Amino acid sequence: MAALRRLGTAVDGNFQGATGGMVPPPSPRILTPNGRPSAPNRREEGAVANGGGSSPGLAALRPTKKAPRGKVYLATAGGKPGKRAPFWQAALVVSIVLNIWLFLHPYVNDTAHPPHHHLQQEHQEACLTHPDAADRSAVDSGRRRARLEEPVPKAWAAGAPSTGKPAVTPDSVINLDHGDPTMFEEFWRGTGDAAEIVIPGWQTMSYFSDVGNVCWFMEPGFNHEVRRLHRLVGNAAVDGYHVLVGTGSTQLFMAALYALSPPADTNGGAPMSVVSTAPYYSSYPAVTDFLQSGLFRWAGDANSFKGDTYIELVCSPNNPDGTIREAVLSSDSGIAVHDLAYYWPQYTPITKRADHDIMLFTVSKSTGHAGTRIGWALVKDRDVAKKMTKFIELNTIGVSKDSQLRAAKVLKAVSDAYEMPEGKEEQHRLFDYGRRKMVERWSMLREAAATSGIFSLPEETSAYCNFANETASTNPAFAWLRCDREDVEDCASFLRGHKILTRSGSQFGADPRYVRVSMLDRDDAYDIFVKRLSSLK
Amino acid sequence: MAALRRLGTAVDGNFQGATGGMVPPPSPRILTPNGRPSAPNRREEGAVANGGGSSPGLAALRPTKKAPRGKVYLATAGGKPGKRAPFWQAALVVSIVLNIWLFLHPYVNDTAHPPHHHLQQEHQEACLTHPDAADRSAVDSGRRRARLEEPVPKAWAAGAPSTGKPAVTPDSVINLDHGDPTMFEEFWRGTGDAAEIVIPGWQTMSYFSDVGNVCWFMEPGFNHEVRRLHRLVGNAAVDGYHVLVGTGSTQLFMAALYALSPPADTNGGAPMSVVSTAPYYSSYPAVTDFLQSGLFRWAGDANSFKGDTYIELVCSPNNPDGTIREAVLSSDSGIAVHDLAYYWPQYTPITKRADHDIMLFTVSKSTGHAGTRIGWALVKDRDVAKKMTKFIELNTIGVSKDSQLRAAKVLKAVSDAYEMPEGKEEQHRLFDYGRRKMVERWSMLREAAATSGIFSLPEETSAYCNFANETASTNPAFAWLRCDREDVEDCASFLRGHKILTRSGSQFGADPRYVRVSMLDRDDAYDIFVKRLSSLK
Repeated sequence: MAALRRLGTAVDGNFQGATGGMVPPPSPRILTPNGRPSAPNRREEGAVANGGGSSPGLAALRPTKKAPRGKVYLATAGGKPGKRAPFWQAALVVSIVLNIWLFLHPYVNDTAHPPHHHLQQEHQEACLTHPDAADRSAVDSGRRRARLEEPVPKAWAAGAPSTGKPAVTPDSVINLDHGDPTMFEEFWRGTGDAAEIVIPGWQTMSYFSDVGNVCWFMEPGFNHEVRRLHRLVGNAAVDGYHVLVGTGSTQLFMAALYALSPPADTNGGAPMSVVSTAPYYSSYPAVTDFLQSGLFRWAGDANSFKGDTYIELVCSPNNPDGTIREAVLSSDSGIAVHDLAYYWPQYTPITKRADHDIMLFTVSKSTGHAGTRIGWALVKDRDVAKKMTKFIELNTIGVSKDSQLRAAKVLKAVSDAYEMPEGKEEQHRLFDYGRRKMVERWSMLREAAATSGIFSLPEETSAYCNFANETASTNPAFAWLRCDREDVEDCASFLRGHKILTRSGSQFGADPRYVRVSMLDRDDAYDIFVKRLSSLK
Repeated sequence: MAALRRLGTAVDGNFQGATGGMVPPPSPRILTPNGRPSAPNRREEGAVANGGGSSPGLAALRPTKKAPRGKVYLATAGGKPGKRAPFWQAALVVSIVLNIWLFLHPYVNDTAHPPHHHLQQEHQEACLTHPDAADRSAVDSGRRRARLEEPVPKAWAAGAPSTGKPAVTPDSVINLDHGDPTMFEEFWRGTGDAAEIVIPGWQTMSYFSDVGNVCWFMEPGFNHEVRRLHRLVGNAAVDGYHVLVGTGSTQLFMAALYALSPPADTNGGAPMSVVSTAPYYSSYPAVTDFLQSGLFRWAGDANSFKGDTYIELVCSPNNPDGTIREAVLSSDSGIAVHDLAYYWPQYTPITKRADHDIMLFTVSKSTGHAGTRIGWALVKDRDVAKKMTKFIELNTIGVSKDSQLRAAKVLKAVSDAYEMPEGKEEQHRLFDYGRRKMVERWSMLREAAATSGIFSLPEETSAYCNFANETASTNPAFAWLRCDREDVEDCASFLRGHKILTRSGSQFGADPRYVRVSMLDRDDAYDIFVKRLSSLK
């Protein structure tokens, strides 16, 4: 129960958490790090190399042929075995032995680059077959148990990387409370090493990245790839804008509140009002108010706000309901902050190049790399940019350069696939892949809701997408699901009783008949959700 | 000037900044990314492979022999050229060609792993030979100019990583205002790939790392290496403690304030008082107050605090003056937070295993990886640990997993060198290296102060170090330098006039006759500083 509640309260700043506790917690499992085999399996590596796409680098280090089998016959000039072989027959034998050694020794020694593509299945199996008690130290010992029977590959010996939420089974609690974007893992596995990054031990140790830039802790390469991607997609203007980097767009949201609020001794001492139109993202009130800042304070629904001085948060496409939005307030002493986390082609048609004063984006929702903790802001005004930078300096003395460089590599891979498409298939183009997945998932969801008969969903809308050059529908990252059964006033509780975790509409300033459901989880979890939903009456 | 002032205000939350502006800014330079050659040089790669230590993995992928040269002769059975060669002579030719291909193609295709050891010299040269105007876009175009005459290796094409502050010359402004720990770069270059990390494109995309842990966004491998390192060094107890990770210890400091302050509607509505004994770290007041939180507020010097309810910050060894400290206040409703950022063998003898309720550490000062933005807290109380975790969830939805995994690898390399020392020389043992450097630097500084005659420094102290098993002196990461000339009341201004940037004692709640000087910068900057200091009269 504690684990359930913790999942319900984690992420997106939902500190109010899920209410009640009607569902038993899932059997605790060791979070087996990532299911990678602890020693490379040569046959699998051969298969991986073949499936790894056409990218050079690591894939090219693994020749695609299998080791030759069969015997080596020493034939003499006369064709009869047994006679003493001339020198160059012996040389042939030696040469073939050398061929075999050169071919195979990377597999013996290549502990730094374990195979990729089989990991998902192995991870699933590992999670299913390593149940454990609630012993927290089991995570450490479990890793050792799972791994140390064989030598631990170098890249993992620092502790194998985690793999997110535990795997699901048909009877699991399905947790779609958070927008954990693990749907994109499949895409990135398919790109081979296009988005892989190597970080030497001595690299980017300094606090400073670019002392000549307003955002002095921002890696120039990240700046470059952000601008490049926006020019490619056409979803936001970048010329004349400062790019700022943050530890997720959440940090940049706080930075914007700080930058746009007057000093505490002005405005009659009253904190700046922060508003947004309901249903608004549940984190907005939570993040605005958790420190009880004297500079800014949540003031609720923008539709009912009376006053001239405010910060209006405009999220478009909106979280939770996916609608396309504009600011509703207008005043010389008010300012809008535009959260465009979902303004990407996989979720919505790109209808115009946004050019607001402050625009927030995040890799979490564009590429799916939530664990990297990188967001960025496009800011017109230099003084606002400087104050936002100052916030991040005081909060965390800048932003991880490792994350920035990884994000830059990921963004580069996205842009490369569109700008240099030779040899790349559709599944290496992020927005094509993402759109296809979202269309599929919304179709499955609408079908399940229709089968069930007790749920309704927002109408699908469409518009011409300037990026895809065709009319495209909206396929939001969250489903704003309403339970229409008259006797169900609290949809989140109702669904929790069926082992589906969602986030109640009440957390978004809306009716608790609504819930927000993540559309971005892994296929296995989503499939179980849809199936279970369709059975509800 | 703006660049100077920005450097003066950046980092360590010193938003008050350097005053005045008597020193012209340094010639702006392109921050040439890192001087790596843009295409692998085979001869250098051969040298690198030989010099890269005994670690397997990447080094093993580069055979150490040069490609065979010379011709292939097709000899016939009778020794006369020209006759039609039997099948197996042709087979020998084919086999030899295959050998050559297998041998060489990693060099042609291995764009993901450029050589390591020549980079330092090339970086230095690149920085010194690429001066640039103040054109901010020069960073981008400079990278292109420097790199794109040759194909850009894959790992760098995302934008070469930054290299910190610009290089210095004998006439440069020397900026020792911040504790930028680039002194440690030399050490880490010398460890080859022991601390190198490879991050595949699909890895750690989820928000979640370990749903069974209080700190659900913490990588288990990081947790493991933190505990291991503390057990090795003996500087802090870990059994019975929760480990929490943060985006630097700065974030964990804020998290502790949040966790230890009662809700705003208690305590008569008064925010919790936050105190520390002067001279205290300049960031403490800045970070405590910048959001004007209703939960906590800076209340100055602990020595003059009257009251029973407080949070006392105890930094030991202290920043700025290096003294060993304990809490000065004692009350049932007060609590101490211990900032042990400098409690490592390179700075001070390890005299006991610290076991306070809350202890903060950071990789920035232990290993030198400030750009990675990783700190950790050891916390006894579970509820405090949960509230600190909640702070980080609301602030940044967790901590970069890329940074955590890199930090884990770095910490692992530190521990490995002590626990598995076979084949490793002293220069691969971090604390031995660090201690040697700090002893040298303090010796140089004391000599320079003596030569100058107008400065004084804290007395050296020593004690038995349980880690080194010998008596060791204190060699703090900052020099708390006092100007003794009667006509100099503001030492920071005086030194600025001599193109040395330091941080005024007034920012630490102390007399402006004192300044804090970083002892952790690169050799070139430090050497110029010491030389210049010794000349001042």
